[in-house]
Amino acid sequence: MRIFTIKLKVDFGDCDPAGIVFYPNFYRWFDRATHQMFGEIGYSFLQLKEQHGLIGWPLVDTGAKFLSPASVGDELELHSGISEWGRKTFRISHQIKRADELLVDGFELRILGQPLPENPRKLRAVEIPPAMRAAFGD
Amino acid sequence: MRIFTIKLKVDFGDCDPAGIVFYPNFYRWFDRATHQMFGEIGYSFLQLKEQHGLIGWPLVDTGAKFLSPASVGDELELHSGISEWGRKTFRISHQIKRADELLVDGFELRILGQPLPENPRKLRAVEIPPAMRAAFGD
Amino acid sequence: MRIFTIKLKVDFGDCDPAGIVFYPNFYRWFDRATHQMFGEIGYSFLQLKEQHGLIGWPLVDTGAKFLSPASVGDELELHSGISEWGRKTFRISHQIKRADELLVDGFELRILGQPLPENPRKLRAVEIPPAMRAAFGD
Amino acid sequence: MRIFTIKLKVDFGDCDPAGIVFYPNFYRWFDRATHQMFGEIGYSFLQLKEQHGLIGWPLVDTGAKFLSPASVGDELELHSGISEWGRKTFRISHQIKRADELLVDGFELRILGQPLPENPRKLRAVEIPPAMRAAFGD
Repeated sequence: MRIFTIKLKVDFGDCDPAGIVFYPNFYRWFDRATHQMFGEIGYSFLQLKEQHGLIGWPLVDTGAKFLSPASVGDELELHSGISEWGRKTFRISHQIKRADELLVDGFELRILGQPLPENPRKLRAVEIPPAMRAAFGD
Repeated sequence: MRIFTIKLKVDFGDCDPAGIVFYPNFYRWFDRATHQMFGEIGYSFLQLKEQHGLIGWPLVDTGAKFLSPASVGDELELHSGISEWGRKTFRISHQIKRADELLVDGFELRILGQPLPENPRKLRAVEIPPAMRAAFGD
Repeated sequence: MRIFTIKLKVDFGDCDPAGIVFYPNFYRWFDRATHQMFGEIGYSFLQLKEQHGLIGWPLVDTGAKFLSPASVGDELELHSGISEWGRKTFRISHQIKRADELLVDGFELRILGQPLPENPRKLRAVEIPPAMRAAFGD
Repeated sequence: MRIFTIKLKVDFGDCDPAGIVFYPNFYRWFDRATHQMFGEIGYSFLQLKEQHGLIGWPLVDTGAKFLSPASVGDELELHSGISEWGRKTFRISHQIKRADELLVDGFELRILGQPLPENPRKLRAVEIPPAMRAAFGD
């Protein structure tokens, strides 16, 4: 599994009155990592839309275990990779670390969304193109 | 299981360039529901801190399955309840509906956080007080 | 000036480590109020797009004075109205109160955005339709 | 005026259904820049609290003019500095640029907040310590 890494620094505004990261922000960072990852291999949201007629990577399932909290000013690393390819789904694993300590262990299960011809506001899952999988080295 | 209900309307600013709710916001609403629920039975974040020396309900695990998206202006209902009590943990189930349609099916597994005497910035889990459980009718 | 009112309760997740509302959230609520207001008179974001070919109300200028902070659980009222119509701009005044106390006094100066025919990703300001102004009772 | 610079990349989740940055996020980035700036000269939120008994930099007034929108993936630079010192207030100017193009021109007017001895949840403004001003080179 190819690992993609993002660094980030926890903002004051990311934290709650308990002084630690308000947990939905970890999911916000998961989403950032997913976009970053697909952008790096040539399948950004915009490229997906304009070159493949697909509307991003709708979510099917998500989860995150919290092992230790993060606070204002902490420097974090987000390690992400595609841990499993299905025919129409893929699972992205996300691990958030502070130095060597694992703080958050999460995942996103996504599909590739194609607008229905009869109703472009509805999406259906399409098969993962082999070229996309290959671009990840899988 | 006693069910607590919150109504909300999806804001423009809750949605992303795909025109649907940016998914971390669903977790933000889970957190809102948890606070609301504990407030209703007399254990708000402030009451917990001032009357019980506890710092909220730190998260251990979370998850959400997404069945159908929500868009700007949608009127949603969030149905939440405590689906499982452990000795030191409790699981809150959250279901987000638009009319009768289930959109999001999620959970939060939390503990009660007590600051360590030797380092008030570190928290440990304490046993769930029977009075709190009783306040939920469980 | 017709005043539109929104009620809201401050969430834990709206607040920062100082225990008060993280200020960008006040602007988030200004935006909610603007959408609410236009929706009530029949010019929601969707109606604007589908019936008038306009992409919302892009912002030109914004500001907010903070008189007193708000905390978790506070019940707030947002009073908004269009305080000034220009030929192509309009100024929305937003006041956020807790009971009778004014906490935030702000404004948004906006235009009506029309996509350029030659580049739909660029917007230009159009003249305010008299019907829209009339719908506000002005 | 000493200028402090932050680079950031616009996330998908920072943008709204119009495909551009949801404007309250610009204020979120202003706040990030202010914290960054004070941290660099040795007056972080934590240092302020622990060494000076002050609770951050409460806001008095804010504003932002929007000259051009930013979209997903844009690489932005935030240039910030203290443009004016009062006896008890200071004005931070924030300019957000994409390459050479100025997108947002804003400011924050802040005070230094000291908890009242009789009610630590209320803050009053204190005089700016000359050492802090000197640390900015002013």
